[in-house]
Amino acid sequence: MSADRLSRTFSALADPTRRAILARLSSGEASVTERAEPFDMSLPAVSKHLKVLQRAGLIVRGRAAQWRPCRLDAAPLKDAANWLEHYRLFWEQSLDGLEAYLTELQGMEGRRGDRD
Amino acid sequence: MSADRLSRTFSALADPTRRAILARLSSGEASVTERAEPFDMSLPAVSKHLKVLQRAGLIVRGRAAQWRPCRLDAAPLKDAANWLEHYRLFWEQSLDGLEAYLTELQGMEGRRGDRD
Repeated sequence: MSADRLSRTFSALADPTRRAILARLSSGEASVTERAEPFDMSLPAVSKHLKVLQRAGLIVRGRAAQWRPCRLDAAPLKDAANWLEHYRLFWEQSLDGLEAYLTELQGMEGRRGDRD
Repeated sequence: MSADRLSRTFSALADPTRRAILARLSSGEASVTERAEPFDMSLPAVSKHLKVLQRAGLIVRGRAAQWRPCRLDAAPLKDAANWLEHYRLFWEQSLDGLEAYLTELQGMEGRRGDRD
């Protein structure tokens, strides 16, 4: 089901280590060992994170027994970005609101400055 | 921590009911009871989902004791979209790759057609 796939994607992204793994993979394929290096984490711990990413379809792992290279598959990220895109109007509106509020504050500061 | 906020956002989005609640809130403020209606779900179950959304900063709840209106706060969605944006190049590349593959297939079909 498409909704479940989206849930799996968001769930996989809900962890800073997994996001860091994806960021690192975005610079190219790498083995699990290479994945573990920058995280000060045991290989089994990294393997667990890789399994979550793999189930979400965010990484594809090679078959080479010892090396098992990973590469990023960004297709699920595209679906997540498309889902978020529906809300762009809302965050742009809230920034507009904030901007209006700051302009108003500056106006008040200006008027106060005139009186001093 | 900023990374934790992003994790909370993605975690809150990793559920179809919570995404449906946000979609409904995007058409305006509503009470918890109104939230429960379309989901065929008990009020406590909906309340639990609302709490997750609230902790992630995705909804703001009013103080009116009985009614407690909710409204969407899209700021965390903007951060999530910004994070995903870094990977746009990758999903556009994979679509380009798919397109190239399909063009190649069509070319092969064309050549086969010529022979028939």
